[in-house]
Amino acid sequence: MTDFPERLLAGYRNFMNGRYSDERDRYRVLAETGQKPHTLVVACCDSRSAPETIFDCGPGELFVVRNVANMVPPYEPDSQFHATSAALEYAVQVLKIRNIVVMGHGRCGGIQAALDPAAEPLSPGDFIGKWMSLVRPAAEQIQSNEFMTQSERQTALERVSIRNSIVNLRTFPCVQILEQRGSMHIHGTWFDISTGELWIMDAKGDFVRPNLDGPLPDAEQASA
Amino acid sequence: MTDFPERLLAGYRNFMNGRYSDERDRYRVLAETGQKPHTLVVACCDSRSAPETIFDCGPGELFVVRNVANMVPPYEPDSQFHATSAALEYAVQVLKIRNIVVMGHGRCGGIQAALDPAAEPLSPGDFIGKWMSLVRPAAEQIQSNEFMTQSERQTALERVSIRNSIVNLRTFPCVQILEQRGSMHIHGTWFDISTGELWIMDAKGDFVRPNLDGPLPDAEQASA
Amino acid sequence: MTDFPERLLAGYRNFMNGRYSDERDRYRVLAETGQKPHTLVVACCDSRSAPETIFDCGPGELFVVRNVANMVPPYEPDSQFHATSAALEYAVQVLKIRNIVVMGHGRCGGIQAALDPAAEPLSPGDFIGKWMSLVRPAAEQIQSNEFMTQSERQTALERVSIRNSIVNLRTFPCVQILEQRGSMHIHGTWFDISTGELWIMDAKGDFVRPNLDGPLPDAEQASA
Amino acid sequence: MTDFPERLLAGYRNFMNGRYSDERDRYRVLAETGQKPHTLVVACCDSRSAPETIFDCGPGELFVVRNVANMVPPYEPDSQFHATSAALEYAVQVLKIRNIVVMGHGRCGGIQAALDPAAEPLSPGDFIGKWMSLVRPAAEQIQSNEFMTQSERQTALERVSIRNSIVNLRTFPCVQILEQRGSMHIHGTWFDISTGELWIMDAKGDFVRPNLDGPLPDAEQASA
Repeated sequence: MTDFPERLLAGYRNFMNGRYSDERDRYRVLAETGQKPHTLVVACCDSRSAPETIFDCGPGELFVVRNVANMVPPYEPDSQFHATSAALEYAVQVLKIRNIVVMGHGRCGGIQAALDPAAEPLSPGDFIGKWMSLVRPAAEQIQSNEFMTQSERQTALERVSIRNSIVNLRTFPCVQILEQRGSMHIHGTWFDISTGELWIMDAKGDFVRPNLDGPLPDAEQASA
Repeated sequence: MTDFPERLLAGYRNFMNGRYSDERDRYRVLAETGQKPHTLVVACCDSRSAPETIFDCGPGELFVVRNVANMVPPYEPDSQFHATSAALEYAVQVLKIRNIVVMGHGRCGGIQAALDPAAEPLSPGDFIGKWMSLVRPAAEQIQSNEFMTQSERQTALERVSIRNSIVNLRTFPCVQILEQRGSMHIHGTWFDISTGELWIMDAKGDFVRPNLDGPLPDAEQASA
Repeated sequence: MTDFPERLLAGYRNFMNGRYSDERDRYRVLAETGQKPHTLVVACCDSRSAPETIFDCGPGELFVVRNVANMVPPYEPDSQFHATSAALEYAVQVLKIRNIVVMGHGRCGGIQAALDPAAEPLSPGDFIGKWMSLVRPAAEQIQSNEFMTQSERQTALERVSIRNSIVNLRTFPCVQILEQRGSMHIHGTWFDISTGELWIMDAKGDFVRPNLDGPLPDAEQASA
Repeated sequence: MTDFPERLLAGYRNFMNGRYSDERDRYRVLAETGQKPHTLVVACCDSRSAPETIFDCGPGELFVVRNVANMVPPYEPDSQFHATSAALEYAVQVLKIRNIVVMGHGRCGGIQAALDPAAEPLSPGDFIGKWMSLVRPAAEQIQSNEFMTQSERQTALERVSIRNSIVNLRTFPCVQILEQRGSMHIHGTWFDISTGELWIMDAKGDFVRPNLDGPLPDAEQASA
C-alpha cells in the first residue's frame, strides 16, 4: 500500500494496542480541551535522549523543541525564521509554561563537531558549522586545552552549551520578566547515555546528581 | 538541593527503575558505538505528539527535530542560524539516515495561529508570526474558503504544511540526490490526537489510513 | 602525664580494644615476617581521603605516600632530598610492589591554591607555591578558561594532576621497565568527598565509575 | 572495564556499604564546609602504621603526611620542591592546625636501611640513600655501638629520627612562633607493631607508655 517503514508501522500498532488503548480517554480530553504542558524542554535531536522517555512523561506533559545540541540562540527580533525562538514564544505566551528545561547529553555529535578544529563543512550549505558557531568561542578555548582528554573537553563543552542556552533564554524579555516575578523557572540537565545518569545544574551552574533515595512523590501524583 | 520539578524527578526515577534498568546494555552499547538511527522525524513541539511514543521506538532509533508545526524551511545557504537545516544536514551527511518522516497532527496550535486573520503578534519579536509565514499563502487561501468548516480548514492546512515541508526538503541538494538514487525515502504522516489514528501520505499526497490488520512484522523483528 | 591530645589517646584506646584486639595475630605476624603490601598509594594529605578508610584496607596492605595534591615529581637523580621518589624507590625495589595507585580527590586545597591566580605565598618559604608549580602549566591553561565554572576547573585540574603524576611515575626507569614487562600496574583514581564516589581512570585517561553491582569477590578473599 | 585491583574495589564496596553509609552526612558537610583537622600527623609510609587506624580517627580529623621514616627536613627556603615542607606550610597557614604529631614505629624499613653500613643504592638514583642521609650522623654512631643488639640499635634510631624530625620542625619560623605563643603543640609517638603499644615522647625526649586505664573521655566526646 505504501513504502512506509515497517518498523514504524509495527511500532505504531504497539502504541495503539498498548499505551493508546490504556490512555484513550486522556488523549480524547487532551484533544478536546487542548494541551496544557507543565514544561518546555529544549533537547537535542539525538536518538538516545528523548525527553519523554527519560522523564517518563505521557501525552500532554512536555512541549519539546529539539535541535542539534539543544541550543537556544539569543533574542534577535529580525525578519528571519527562528524555529527555536518561535517555539519559545508559543510556549511562554500561549501555553503559559512554568518550567523550561534545557537538556543536554553525553556523546553529542554536534558538540563533537564544534570541537573538531579540522572540521570541513558537511555540505556546501555548512548548516552545522553555522549552527554550532553559537558556542564557537567556548569550543575554541576548550579545544585548545592540551591537558584535558578529548572526552573531558567534550563533556565540558556539552555543559557550557547548556549554560549558554540558559543565558540566551534570559535575553528574551518575556522570559526575563516572568523569571523575575518568580512565575518561570529555568533548569539545566545533562544526561549520561552510557550510565543513564541525569545531572542537574545547580545555582552556580555546576552539574550534580540528584538524590533519588528520598521520599519523592509518585510520578503519577506529583504536581509539576 | 535544587528546585528541579518534582514531577520530572519522579519520572526520571521511573525511567531508571524501569526502561533503563531493562535496557542498560543497549544504552551502554549506544554510548560506545554511537547512534545509528534509521529515521529522521520532523515533528511538532506539541506535547501530545511525541514521535517515540507514537511509533513506540526505543533509544537509538529516531533522530528527531521538533519545531512548531513540523516545518522544514527551504534550502537557504546564507549566513544565518538554521536549526532545522543543521539537523537535516547532520542526519543525512553524518548519520546516513535512510528515511525522513514529516509528522503533523490534529489540533496544531501553530496551524491555528496561521489561520487566524486577526492574530496579533504574541510578543514584540513576533517569532511565531514569522515562522508561520512559511505556510502563509496556503493559510490565506484556505482561510478565505467560506464553504469549509473551521475544523476542516485546520486539518487542510495541517496536511498542506506536511506537503510543504516535503517540498522544501527536496530543495536540499543532498536530499534530492539521495532520493533520486533510491537510497533515501521521504514520508508524510498526520496523527489524530483525539482518535489515535495515524494517516500516511500516499504517492499522490493524499492521507490514508494504513491497514494494520495484516501480518505486520513484530516491532522487535521489523528491519528499518 | 603528658599533654598528648586526649582525642588521639581515646582513639588509640578504641583501636586497642577493637581492631587490634581482633587482629592481634595479624599484627604479630606482620611484625615478625615484615610487610608485604600489594599496593603503593600516592594520596593527598587531606583529612577526608585516607586510603585505608576508602579502600577498607587493614594492616600490611597499603604502602602509602601522602603529600599535598598526591603528586609525583619527575625522575631527578640529583643530590636533593626527594621524599616521594625515595618512597617510590623503596616500594618498587625492596617491597616489590605490583600496583601503584595515584589517588586524587575533590575539593583539594592544593589544587585550589594552584588555580588562584592572585595567590600570595603562604609564608616567606613559599613551599606550597613551589610544590604546586609541578602542575602550573595546566593550572594556568585551565584557569584561563572563562566558560567553565570554578568547580569544573577544580575537578579538571584534580584529574590532570593525577595523570601528571602517572606521567612522572613513568619517567622512573624501574617503573618503566616493570610496567613494560607487565609486572607493574599503574592506576589513577579520584574520590568525590561529597558523594563518596570513586572514579577510576581508564586507558584513555578518562575517569569513570566502576560497576560495583557485579559479582565482586569478598574483600577478605580477593587477591590483589 | 579496567584492571583495577579487585581487592581495592571490594574494599571500596565495603566502605560504601559500611562507613560511608553510616557517615554520609559527615562527608557531605566536610565537602561543603571544608576540612578542619585538629592534628597534622607526620607518619611513615609503612603499611602497618596507618595513623587513622591507630588513632581510630574518622574523616576530617587528621591531615597526614607520609614519607619513608616519618621525616621532616630542616627549613630550606630554596627553589626546590619540598613535599613535606609544603604540607607543613599548608597545615599551619591554611588549616591552622593546633597539634603536630610525628609518629614513628618499630621494624621501620627506612631506618633499617640507614643502619646497614654495606647498603648499596637501591637504584642508580639512590633516592633512599639521600633521603635517609637526614639521620646519617646518628645512624653511623648508633651502628658503631658494638654493645647494643641490632634490634636495640634499630629502636634507638627510630626514636632518634622522631626527635630529629621535631628539631627540624622547629626550624620553620611559623612553627617556632606558634609554639612559643602556646597555640601549637608538638608531639612524638612510636608505635610497636608487634604488640600494638603506643609510646609517647615526654618533655625530656624519652618514650613512655601512657596510662590508659584512667577515666579517658570517650573518643566521640573528647575535644581535640
